[in-house]
Amino acid sequence: MTRHSAVPPPVTAVLDASSRWLPARLGEVEETLREQGGGHGEALAADAAMTLEAGGKRLRPMLVLLCAGEGADDGVVRAAAAIELIHMATLVHDDVLDAAPLRRGRPTVAATAGRERATATGDLLFSRAFALLAAAGDLRSIELLSAASVALARGELAQRQDAYDSSIGEQRYLERCRLKTAALFECACLLGQDDESLGAFGASIGLAFQLLDDVLDVSGPPERTGKARGTDLLDGTVTLPLILAAERDAGIRETDLRSLDPAAAESLCERIEATGALRQVRSRALEMVAEGKRRLAGLGAERRRLFDLVADGVVQRYS
Amino acid sequence: MTRHSAVPPPVTAVLDASSRWLPARLGEVEETLREQGGGHGEALAADAAMTLEAGGKRLRPMLVLLCAGEGADDGVVRAAAAIELIHMATLVHDDVLDAAPLRRGRPTVAATAGRERATATGDLLFSRAFALLAAAGDLRSIELLSAASVALARGELAQRQDAYDSSIGEQRYLERCRLKTAALFECACLLGQDDESLGAFGASIGLAFQLLDDVLDVSGPPERTGKARGTDLLDGTVTLPLILAAERDAGIRETDLRSLDPAAAESLCERIEATGALRQVRSRALEMVAEGKRRLAGLGAERRRLFDLVADGVVQRYS
Repeated sequence: MTRHSAVPPPVTAVLDASSRWLPARLGEVEETLREQGGGHGEALAADAAMTLEAGGKRLRPMLVLLCAGEGADDGVVRAAAAIELIHMATLVHDDVLDAAPLRRGRPTVAATAGRERATATGDLLFSRAFALLAAAGDLRSIELLSAASVALARGELAQRQDAYDSSIGEQRYLERCRLKTAALFECACLLGQDDESLGAFGASIGLAFQLLDDVLDVSGPPERTGKARGTDLLDGTVTLPLILAAERDAGIRETDLRSLDPAAAESLCERIEATGALRQVRSRALEMVAEGKRRLAGLGAERRRLFDLVADGVVQRYS
Repeated sequence: MTRHSAVPPPVTAVLDASSRWLPARLGEVEETLREQGGGHGEALAADAAMTLEAGGKRLRPMLVLLCAGEGADDGVVRAAAAIELIHMATLVHDDVLDAAPLRRGRPTVAATAGRERATATGDLLFSRAFALLAAAGDLRSIELLSAASVALARGELAQRQDAYDSSIGEQRYLERCRLKTAALFECACLLGQDDESLGAFGASIGLAFQLLDDVLDVSGPPERTGKARGTDLLDGTVTLPLILAAERDAGIRETDLRSLDPAAAESLCERIEATGALRQVRSRALEMVAEGKRRLAGLGAERRRLFDLVADGVVQRYS
């Protein structure tokens, strides 16, 4: 249940001439991010800049821009940059906690600069997000983004609280995913446009995103995910593949996660896969994406096509 | 250069009948803090609630309230609570990094709940501060507070960057203190009232606060500060007592902080004290407090008396 396991081809690569505005706007977001990461007049924020420049899918900024549409004003670029700053802040803090050496194939701030600087870097990115929106007087975005940030932190707390607890069921797992991942996707859509259907679309694909990430932790392969199989299991994080597999296999049900070493975690991954749980979770995620798309039935065909591309981008990473 | 080494008697204890409004308003701040820490409908935020309830001097909220004055509206209570939430968030993150077992005589979140939950708790407190102000539509407070939060993180980054660097001079040290401590005191005053003199007062006593805290790290005694002497030295944090002592004592100048163990750190503390550097830093801090008070010459005698009490409260902790 970590975030961002793999780097897919950017969705923008498949856009055609009719949607050229999107890459251009994403370029403005990148520029704003660079200003936020580096604009401190000294070399101090190098770690923050490094984190931002390491790139990523920019899925959340893309959702902001798509929901706002082609003619939106510059406020939407700031909002898109702000949500990515919050997302990056959580990644940097995650890497501190996980002592992760690599993220997106590059060394993490935690690995190169130490835990102390990485924690402060996360706090800096976090603060910059709100400072950026406040300077522009964008109260509504601050309200949406601070509420989503509260959800993120609550989701993280819930996950840590649930660690190694084999009584965690599907409902609790889904609630955690909503807090930890879906809330920020939903927020991205609402930052673009205050529309319930768009928000619901964001929440659905965010939930699917997390389910598929949790499948990937079990399925690997490590060459593709950049981490060993079963990392969540070793952390004691009970995810849906494990929950569903345990219903079918008493041996899995009786496994004490605290007793796992990396080799045992990999064996457990194979055993989970053998129950068919991964196929089941994948199909649940695909259904969530389909449900998200259905929420957009009221949009014109041209806009819907772009949303479908993003939604499919989330899925294709894992196919 | 940690924060909050000792717990002084609350300033409110010395207020007389003419300023009864202040404790009453501080009570409202406490209530708001309790709501923010605990109001998540589940036991998850217990750590956050524990942190808030552990109390503290509430110096920053008190400055907000004092600057706003007796007749201010309820927005000032929210602003006072928000700045304390930010302050608490930084304390929780500090304790994660320092692996501190105790804070204000109670176990830290990092010690009881682990680093992971403590990091998320800090993020939660941070997010709640902005969510609280955003829900009330208080854009100006968000702008001030997010800028101060950026300063805090930059100060923390600067300190980590400077670690073990014996070439750090007074100017760089003071700049760090401004970012790490004075900016939030200044912000507290400006949250109460947008007045340059009040802001300058806050910055001055904030700077004095940090200088005196750094004296305390060298002087001890541990029974009073709750931590061993020389904790900063062991962390490689170069503070003003060391900088001034090194100018006078070649032996100190040539000490490699990386080579220190706790016993050697304690010896170094004694050697620093023997140079008279602690007296010198204390006197600099007192001059800063006096300068801060002079900025308030334009206020009426009644209000000035309250500000003097707070300023003296900062100093008396260390006398």
